Amino acid sequence: MKTINPKEISTQQLHSYLLGSIAPRPIAFASTVDKVGNVNLSPFSFFNIFGSNPPILVFSPARRVRDNSTKHSLDNVREVPEVVINIVNYEMVEQMSLASTEYERGINEFVKSGLTEQPSIIVKPPRIKEAPAAFECKVLEVIPFGEEGGAANLVVCEVLLAHFKEEIFGENGQIDPFKLDAVARMGGDWYCRANGTALFEIAKPIRNKGIGVDNIPEEIKNSIVLTGNNLGRLGNIEKLPSKYEIEAYAKQATIQEMKHRFKNDKESFVFHLHEYAKEVLEGGDTLTAWKILLQEY
Amino acid sequence: MKTINPKEISTQQLHSYLLGSIAPRPIAFASTVDKVGNVNLSPFSFFNIFGSNPPILVFSPARRVRDNSTKHSLDNVREVPEVVINIVNYEMVEQMSLASTEYERGINEFVKSGLTEQPSIIVKPPRIKEAPAAFECKVLEVIPFGEEGGAANLVVCEVLLAHFKEEIFGENGQIDPFKLDAVARMGGDWYCRANGTALFEIAKPIRNKGIGVDNIPEEIKNSIVLTGNNLGRLGNIEKLPSKYEIEAYAKQATIQEMKHRFKNDKESFVFHLHEYAKEVLEGGDTLTAWKILLQEY
Repeated sequence: MKTINPKEISTQQLHSYLLGSIAPRPIAFASTVDKVGNVNLSPFSFFNIFGSNPPILVFSPARRVRDNSTKHSLDNVREVPEVVINIVNYEMVEQMSLASTEYERGINEFVKSGLTEQPSIIVKPPRIKEAPAAFECKVLEVIPFGEEGGAANLVVCEVLLAHFKEEIFGENGQIDPFKLDAVARMGGDWYCRANGTALFEIAKPIRNKGIGVDNIPEEIKNSIVLTGNNLGRLGNIEKLPSKYEIEAYAKQATIQEMKHRFKNDKESFVFHLHEYAKEVLEGGDTLTAWKILLQEY
Repeated sequence: MKTINPKEISTQQLHSYLLGSIAPRPIAFASTVDKVGNVNLSPFSFFNIFGSNPPILVFSPARRVRDNSTKHSLDNVREVPEVVINIVNYEMVEQMSLASTEYERGINEFVKSGLTEQPSIIVKPPRIKEAPAAFECKVLEVIPFGEEGGAANLVVCEVLLAHFKEEIFGENGQIDPFKLDAVARMGGDWYCRANGTALFEIAKPIRNKGIGVDNIPEEIKNSIVLTGNNLGRLGNIEKLPSKYEIEAYAKQATIQEMKHRFKNDKESFVFHLHEYAKEVLEGGDTLTAWKILLQEY
C-alpha cells in the first residue's frame, strides 16, 4: 500500500492521484453569464447530485493548481447567481473538450465549440440545444474551502427547471442509460463512455435483508472457486433453501453424476460442485446456486 | 423536450430522472463509527472530489425519499466527525451492494458483506482492506439543504491520509484506470464498469488555444459527413496548415485519384474528400485531416 500524507507531496501530484482514483466523475457542462450578459460555457467534473428534495446539484470550479487563478464560471456565478448545468453525451464530447480551452474572458465557448445556444425559460444563461438533459438552476451559495491553488469552491445549485430529450427515455418511462450515452471523466486525459458492455445491473437489496456473508457456511465462504462478488450475491439471499428443497435437488442428474464420478474424492467433488454453483449464480439464479452448494457429500 | 418543474412532480419520480441523467456517479464506500465504537459501512453515489488543496471530498447521505428517515452514516459522522471513504472496484461490487442493505443500527456491514476491516492510522473508522484506494478523512462540516425526504446533507470531508494499492499504478507512476477497474452508479439498478472499450482518451486542450469551430470554413462546418465530434477536434487545432503545405499535399496519390475520378462532379469530390479526412482525423492526425479538407477542387 502506498500511503500518502497530503501535506507531504505537491498539490499537483496529489491532484493527479485523487483524480485518478475518484472516478468516473459525471460532467457538469455549465453555462453562465456575467453582469453585462457575456456567456461562458465550461465543463467541470467536480460535480454531482446531492439531494432531490429540493433538487441540489453541486459543482466546483476549483482554483487552478497551476497559478491559483479562478475560472470565469466562478466569477460569473458570483455576479449572476444562475447556471444551466448541461449533461454531456458521447456525441458531443470533443466539442465539450474544446470548450474547456482557457479562452479569454468574454469569449463565448458556445461559439468556439460550435454548440447551439437555446434560451432558457427561467434563468439568464442559455442551455445547450444538443445536450440530452439540462438543468436551469439558481445558485444558493458559493462555499470556498481554502484560498490557494487547488482550493474547492462549492457552487450549490437548486434545480428550478429540468429538460430531458424525449429520445433518452426507455419504454418503461425511465431514462435508459444506453440511450443517454453519457461520458464521464477519469484521471489524466481519460474519459469513460457509459454504454455497451460497461453497463450492468445489480438488483437493489434495499427492501429485503440478505443473510450476509457472515451467515454463509465456512466451507463455502473459504471456497477456492467462489469470488468476493459470488459471496456478496450469495449473502444477499433472505433465507436459505429448506432441507427438503436441498434433498429434492439431490435427484438432479448433474448432482448424481458428480457424486458418482467423485465418490472417493471429496475435494474434487466440492471443487466441481462450487464451479457448477458459480456458473448458475452468475447466470442469475441465486436460489439454485444455494441448492447446489448445500449438497452433502 | 420533456420539461419538468421539480415542484410539480413527485420527489420519487424526480429522484429517478435526476439519478438517470446525472451519471455515472463515483461511489464513496463510507466507513464510520458511532460514539460507542459500532462500525457502519455504506455506499453513497452522491459523492465526488471538489478540491485538492486542501483535498476536499463531499458525500451526501440524503434523507430517504421513502420515509424521510436519516442514514446511520449521517448519525455517526454527527457523533464522531471522521470517515474513511473507500473506492469500489469491480471485484467487490456485489459485496458493496450487499452492504447497502438497510440493516439495523449497530449491525457492522463489514461483517455482513464479508469485507475486511483494516485499522486506520489517524481516524477511528477502519478502512476496507480490499479497496484499491481509501481516504482517511475528518469531517469539516455537515450542511443540510432541506428537511424533508430526499433532502441533501453535504458531508464535507478533508483527506488526512490517502492509501493506494501498489497494483493500480501504471509504469508512468500515475494511476492506471484499467488497473483501478472502478465501478460507478447509474440510474435504477444500473452500474458502469470503467474499463475495456468504455475508456478513451482526449488530449487536454488547456495549454493551446484551438481556432474554434467558429473559424472552420462554412463548407467544412456544414459537411454532411463530419460529426460534431469531428468539428470539435478540427477546431482544437491552433493554426491551419499553410497554403504551401496544402499545395504540397495535393500531390498525394489519393488526392490526385479523387480529382481525376470526380473531375465533373464537385459534390462527389467533396463527399469523398470529407470521408477520407474523417478517417484520418479519427485516426488521430488532425493536421493531415485539415490538409485534406482544404484541398481545392
